[in-house]
Amino acid sequence: MEKLLRKCRIPNQLGRECLAECVGVYLLILFGCGSVAQVTTTLDEKGQYLSINLGFALGVTFGVFVSHGVSGAHLNPAVSLSLCVLGRHPWIKLPFYVFSQTIGSFLAAATVYLQYYDAIQAYSGGHLTVTGPNATAGIFATYPSDYLSLWGGITDQVIGTAALLLCVLALGDRRNTSLPDGLQPVMVGAAVLVIGISMGSNSGYALNPARDFGPRLFTYIAGWGADVFTAGGGWWWVPIVAPCVGALLGTLVYELMIEVHHPVRLSVLHNSSTELSDGIKDLELDGEKPA
Amino acid sequence: MEKLLRKCRIPNQLGRECLAECVGVYLLILFGCGSVAQVTTTLDEKGQYLSINLGFALGVTFGVFVSHGVSGAHLNPAVSLSLCVLGRHPWIKLPFYVFSQTIGSFLAAATVYLQYYDAIQAYSGGHLTVTGPNATAGIFATYPSDYLSLWGGITDQVIGTAALLLCVLALGDRRNTSLPDGLQPVMVGAAVLVIGISMGSNSGYALNPARDFGPRLFTYIAGWGADVFTAGGGWWWVPIVAPCVGALLGTLVYELMIEVHHPVRLSVLHNSSTELSDGIKDLELDGEKPA
Amino acid sequence: MEKLLRKCRIPNQLGRECLAECVGVYLLILFGCGSVAQVTTTLDEKGQYLSINLGFALGVTFGVFVSHGVSGAHLNPAVSLSLCVLGRHPWIKLPFYVFSQTIGSFLAAATVYLQYYDAIQAYSGGHLTVTGPNATAGIFATYPSDYLSLWGGITDQVIGTAALLLCVLALGDRRNTSLPDGLQPVMVGAAVLVIGISMGSNSGYALNPARDFGPRLFTYIAGWGADVFTAGGGWWWVPIVAPCVGALLGTLVYELMIEVHHPVRLSVLHNSSTELSDGIKDLELDGEKPA
Amino acid sequence: MEKLLRKCRIPNQLGRECLAECVGVYLLILFGCGSVAQVTTTLDEKGQYLSINLGFALGVTFGVFVSHGVSGAHLNPAVSLSLCVLGRHPWIKLPFYVFSQTIGSFLAAATVYLQYYDAIQAYSGGHLTVTGPNATAGIFATYPSDYLSLWGGITDQVIGTAALLLCVLALGDRRNTSLPDGLQPVMVGAAVLVIGISMGSNSGYALNPARDFGPRLFTYIAGWGADVFTAGGGWWWVPIVAPCVGALLGTLVYELMIEVHHPVRLSVLHNSSTELSDGIKDLELDGEKPA
Repeated sequence: MEKLLRKCRIPNQLGRECLAECVGVYLLILFGCGSVAQVTTTLDEKGQYLSINLGFALGVTFGVFVSHGVSGAHLNPAVSLSLCVLGRHPWIKLPFYVFSQTIGSFLAAATVYLQYYDAIQAYSGGHLTVTGPNATAGIFATYPSDYLSLWGGITDQVIGTAALLLCVLALGDRRNTSLPDGLQPVMVGAAVLVIGISMGSNSGYALNPARDFGPRLFTYIAGWGADVFTAGGGWWWVPIVAPCVGALLGTLVYELMIEVHHPVRLSVLHNSSTELSDGIKDLELDGEKPA
Repeated sequence: MEKLLRKCRIPNQLGRECLAECVGVYLLILFGCGSVAQVTTTLDEKGQYLSINLGFALGVTFGVFVSHGVSGAHLNPAVSLSLCVLGRHPWIKLPFYVFSQTIGSFLAAATVYLQYYDAIQAYSGGHLTVTGPNATAGIFATYPSDYLSLWGGITDQVIGTAALLLCVLALGDRRNTSLPDGLQPVMVGAAVLVIGISMGSNSGYALNPARDFGPRLFTYIAGWGADVFTAGGGWWWVPIVAPCVGALLGTLVYELMIEVHHPVRLSVLHNSSTELSDGIKDLELDGEKPA
Repeated sequence: MEKLLRKCRIPNQLGRECLAECVGVYLLILFGCGSVAQVTTTLDEKGQYLSINLGFALGVTFGVFVSHGVSGAHLNPAVSLSLCVLGRHPWIKLPFYVFSQTIGSFLAAATVYLQYYDAIQAYSGGHLTVTGPNATAGIFATYPSDYLSLWGGITDQVIGTAALLLCVLALGDRRNTSLPDGLQPVMVGAAVLVIGISMGSNSGYALNPARDFGPRLFTYIAGWGADVFTAGGGWWWVPIVAPCVGALLGTLVYELMIEVHHPVRLSVLHNSSTELSDGIKDLELDGEKPA
Repeated sequence: MEKLLRKCRIPNQLGRECLAECVGVYLLILFGCGSVAQVTTTLDEKGQYLSINLGFALGVTFGVFVSHGVSGAHLNPAVSLSLCVLGRHPWIKLPFYVFSQTIGSFLAAATVYLQYYDAIQAYSGGHLTVTGPNATAGIFATYPSDYLSLWGGITDQVIGTAALLLCVLALGDRRNTSLPDGLQPVMVGAAVLVIGISMGSNSGYALNPARDFGPRLFTYIAGWGADVFTAGGGWWWVPIVAPCVGALLGTLVYELMIEVHHPVRLSVLHNSSTELSDGIKDLELDGEKPA
């Protein structure tokens, strides 16, 4: 068994990073959209809005756990973009990451549809609709509330994603917090939880182009049709563009308000020696002697 | 006192592992099925579906806490099976583990019935039924929703257990995450929580042959009769077979997508020396040879 | 300020332990009964049964945080009793601990009444009753459900407290789990949470003689009258006696099923040297030179 | 980019502390008041009172994460005041902290209004009112329940803030608890959660002059008018004055009941050497002298 598995090894670093991003986003959407499916098809009997919040939050947590050690667990094109702008991630990897993330969310949407096929049929009477009383498209992608204007929606997504980045950057800033590494996935999930609780009602807190576009594409193919792109006044592009703007804004705010002001510490010396030993620990022996 | 207790010592390693698995599953079912009993008999007044999710999640957490140091806290025949396939657990122990797990869940179901005897009598009017408005068999074992087809149910259990294994293997993979050991029980519980929130409505997320069969057997004996096996179109075997398939699938996915691609690190050297010292720490002085 | 405070120092070890137990139980009841008051007086609008579960759980957590380093945070006469039986706590301290715990819960009940005075007046129309539609005695002490028989109630309390002790002993057993010390208060709270979720509907999961008797005594004095002792068929003594039985049962089960079977490890050597250094760290200089 | 950011550096220690306090309170109110806005404008459909409790709790958690390493994360004038009285914070910084905290909450209220502009317009029909069926002022500042007397409200705020300080001081007391540093933000959030669950219904648990006054000032300017100061019998000053009294009371109780009684330990020696090395670690190389 062990040996068989080893034959499937991908020695390429970017390849395995992309796989990890794909599996990470897959879990995030599997749990997130699964919780929406459960609440929708049981008419709030086996879950409420809070369980959707928890579903996406813990989905993010386990998505990060599954991919953190391999790809750094971006799980979100807007996050990848921000890290590229900050110079902490190479631009060349950006399209590969984004593509893998979208594939992951597409496959997860397909899995949720498979798992809830009977339930969705029973709930919708077999008619897959985007709007109306038995609409089920909202299980997969986000749609704005009736009252929401286009600019209101853009503002909502920009603020939400900016808040997410503020939290995530604070959690990862070693000079601000001393959160143990192993608990970062939990607290990133908590950030998604609180955003869902406080900024979810306007347009479903996508905050993530891949989270929204992959499942939307799936519904387009799987039978909901072109309505998934025209509904909400052609809403579909907002959760792609606005989160990128929001992520950059949040990054800028954190850098300008907190990070640049950290004093240069003596411990920088200590840090760089740690990085050195980290580097040694990460040194791969692959090229030389495959085990 | 101390001395009296010591006389009851079981020197046999497998014996004490089986005891630990039994107590672990006992706690899991005591809290899990207890929460269903509370929600059912109070007509959702003192709990809702979310409290059932929390009951099973924290049941798993404390089940793991109670048995982790002794037996490794499988608490689930499908997990034991996967670990055997992966070569991380000896096949010879499998039947003993499975038997202990089932005994634990049977005894816990009996305890829940004892604790909720008056409540169940009051709620059901003294008629222990599997279906109908005052059915109480669902407190103990899982039954599928009305709309669910057999294949839909199998798919549901396979996907759910695969997701569980993906999460559990990620949590335990030292090269992916650095979750402190003492917090693994909490995060395994969180995995069960999110699965209950996102995959619970179709058929009650058994995910575990022992969790389902032990209590079902108890209800068969305790007065619910043969209906517990015939209800839901002879549903009873699905939560036994499908979780095993799902666990193997989830294991395969994690190994193929993440684990095999980990680079061989220099730190392997360091790891093996750690294992050496772990081995020394575990060396038993009891006189008998470790099995 | 610093100096003034120092004058109030109690050099006596038992004295400060009793103070800590008193403050710990005070916080537990302040948050626990406070959450019942909030749910009751707002007619479930600002909280539901789950918030009561969370109130007691986090009440325990912060009660433990506040007293852990000083008295060991028993916060429960049944726990103190079990530790005495196990030989981990001196019998001579038992009555002092129990008395302090009861004082703490009495004072907390008084504080809750003070804080919710207007709300209780508005809700009850000024009539402080133990039974009936606007009963408010249940804010403070526990009363059994209508359907519950006396033996059913005793069984309920015995099983609940046994489950609590099983969890607490597992959390504290260094050879079973490696939960960081600083997180024990959180997980003890989680144990109380899951018991409230799965064993709360029969009789309100007192599990603790001090938690129940102190507030009951307060209501007797504050105007609810003798009904607090006669209601529920003279229920008041059950949450005093049954938790003690349950705690001993749970202790016995954990010792017999898990603890005695731990192999004697080489690391005992290591442990005893740790204890030695702990002992040195705890060495008090009080007698010699009060600062 | 890196270089551009560095140009914006504020070398002044107090300046960057004030920025951090401002951002911290901003996040707290953004999530806290955002969750009230979500629950209010969706008529409890996408959240309930518990989600408001979670919104403020996690708001505090992330507010602390974002500012902890820079300013110590007071986020509350009453906390700053208590630390000054205890001698752990210089009095000279107090007004700067309080001002920054209030600015942060004012800006957050403005952001919530911006994000929920469409929702508030749709919910209120365009009339921004403080009382009545479609009142929306409660999204931003706190108002007392109808039944609450002035003294009842003052008592409520004093007790609530005293409980908060008791918990926070216990969490930070190294000789009582060993909570890892990185988890303090989480547990401070949990303290706010349990207070919201057990003491929230009387007057909305402001517990914090800045949390209440900043948003109230915003609503005064943004169109709710003078009613925000006259409503509830001129309630506005209570959440400013009472929390300060409560914070001092809680501090006094913790010091008198727990902290002063800690034995003088040998390890004081060890502590002071740790502080020494901490001091060295914090030594700034920037050229300017630390304030």
